[in-house]
Amino acid sequence: MDSLHKVLIDFDRNRKILENFQFIRILRCNSKAKQICLECLYENAVAILIIEKQPFDENLAPKMIDKLWHSCRDIQNLFWNDIYGSYLIDLLFDQDKEIDSSLQKFFMTIIHPASAKDVEKYLEHSVVMVNETFELYQRFTAPYIKRQLDQLGHLQWLYNIVDGKAECDRKIYEDDEFLIVKDLKWRNNTDQLSAIEKKEIYLNAIVKRRDLHSLRDLTQEHLKILERIDTKGREVIANRYSINEKELRVFLHYQPSFYHLHIHFNHIKNEHHGFQCERAHLLSAVIENIRLVPDYYQKVSIEFPLSDASELKFY
Amino acid sequence: MDSLHKVLIDFDRNRKILENFQFIRILRCNSKAKQICLECLYENAVAILIIEKQPFDENLAPKMIDKLWHSCRDIQNLFWNDIYGSYLIDLLFDQDKEIDSSLQKFFMTIIHPASAKDVEKYLEHSVVMVNETFELYQRFTAPYIKRQLDQLGHLQWLYNIVDGKAECDRKIYEDDEFLIVKDLKWRNNTDQLSAIEKKEIYLNAIVKRRDLHSLRDLTQEHLKILERIDTKGREVIANRYSINEKELRVFLHYQPSFYHLHIHFNHIKNEHHGFQCERAHLLSAVIENIRLVPDYYQKVSIEFPLSDASELKFY
Repeated sequence: MDSLHKVLIDFDRNRKILENFQFIRILRCNSKAKQICLECLYENAVAILIIEKQPFDENLAPKMIDKLWHSCRDIQNLFWNDIYGSYLIDLLFDQDKEIDSSLQKFFMTIIHPASAKDVEKYLEHSVVMVNETFELYQRFTAPYIKRQLDQLGHLQWLYNIVDGKAECDRKIYEDDEFLIVKDLKWRNNTDQLSAIEKKEIYLNAIVKRRDLHSLRDLTQEHLKILERIDTKGREVIANRYSINEKELRVFLHYQPSFYHLHIHFNHIKNEHHGFQCERAHLLSAVIENIRLVPDYYQKVSIEFPLSDASELKFY
Repeated sequence: MDSLHKVLIDFDRNRKILENFQFIRILRCNSKAKQICLECLYENAVAILIIEKQPFDENLAPKMIDKLWHSCRDIQNLFWNDIYGSYLIDLLFDQDKEIDSSLQKFFMTIIHPASAKDVEKYLEHSVVMVNETFELYQRFTAPYIKRQLDQLGHLQWLYNIVDGKAECDRKIYEDDEFLIVKDLKWRNNTDQLSAIEKKEIYLNAIVKRRDLHSLRDLTQEHLKILERIDTKGREVIANRYSINEKELRVFLHYQPSFYHLHIHFNHIKNEHHGFQCERAHLLSAVIENIRLVPDYYQKVSIEFPLSDASELKFY
């Protein structure tokens, strides 16, 4: 069979050929990358068609803002709260209104009025990897954590959850030592999840005691609670949402975004959140390390990315 | 100041308001997620505008294939080789041809004729986490690796690189023990990289000896070569592409896609490739583990995701 690509040479011909592709099935669909892989049939042979939206062009951004609104067909508000609002924008289209209109749609979030801190949060910062020895941890990180915790009301929102004063409807398990709550990133209010919705699963286990701030505090004496969180957490989440316990990615962040021990549970196919190897530590590996070396986390150097915007500095 | 969102209520009014947003600067641009964050000015206050393309709708996929081609303005071939071809599709647009046309563009890859193995590669498989003890490794994984390596010519493409018979132009460093070559995923042929291009950096260190298959083979006796790969690799890449050595993410995969020890070097801001915590192990952590426990990787259980399509089975 001659290569199809050899004959895809001019516009009219290309279009005629492509019109003859017959759809068979979707092979995969990546919602983060805006990509879809399709199996098709063309001239009695299988063709795989991968379609991915193009990234925004940084050079065109200023122009885009000026001209975008002239091409809007619809601006639909999805949600608003205080300074935050989300919109679905639908652009005008020329020939065939029946065509997949999702190609012309995009999401827009507006934060207004935005403080310098809001801007800071979205601004891309320069990041470098830091290799934190335990001595560096004691000298710089531990005092930094203490300063954070000493701020009045710093973890009040979290203690409210632990004390049952907030987000009670987002709690799915509680015992003497820890509770499991839905993460704010997961906007879910039903237990009946479709296959696609299951991939979005995101919950956190929060320990009740207040003296464990991060990975660095963990030793052999915490093995039991870590093992119990691993076992019980998977079990509770798997039962509630009818998924396999082995389909969960269970991990801790170092550095975490707040210094009160919490463990993330998300779906192994979740593509949206911070599970990169330089920040996420699998709970199974943490347990294994402590089993092997009881004071593992008081001995090893840990490498992690540090933004120049962080208040944690190593000098 | 009253909330902007309160007044964004009907289409004509919304458009009028949005037309008055003044562009200040780009805060960040995520090429994988097709998202861009902009700082704007509206009524003397800062507004953050986050625009993200919408994912493809799985329900509309069959229809899309039928109707897409009617709306094409251009189908541009970017590349083709054998059964693989990449195209940039430009859709027709209604009102303002000057508007950011990238909103209407997308990439398309066609593989044709595709074998069952090609289809398999793109098909989404069910994946579960496996916790591989060293006993399980010896019983199932080691024989699986041996079967792979026993296949005639299995790693010939790699030995060709090591022996200087292939991809010589993609090699940027070589000594007695290892070499550093550009990864195939990184399509680069210049050393003068823009800030955006630097984020795409992706190279691999390949060891020359053929007896190290994976993480599981590493012991204290390999500490020296691992440390040298870490130091020399960062140095060579940083010098060649004028970046900071600390901006590199240096890691190994377990399971790797082929069983000959190789170490990945990519930019810490690279968003495209397999650096999730359940598969990627930071080289710094590997070195640290072996320093602490010389036979660490012959002792611990390692958790990793296993596709039901893999020939590695644990039963």
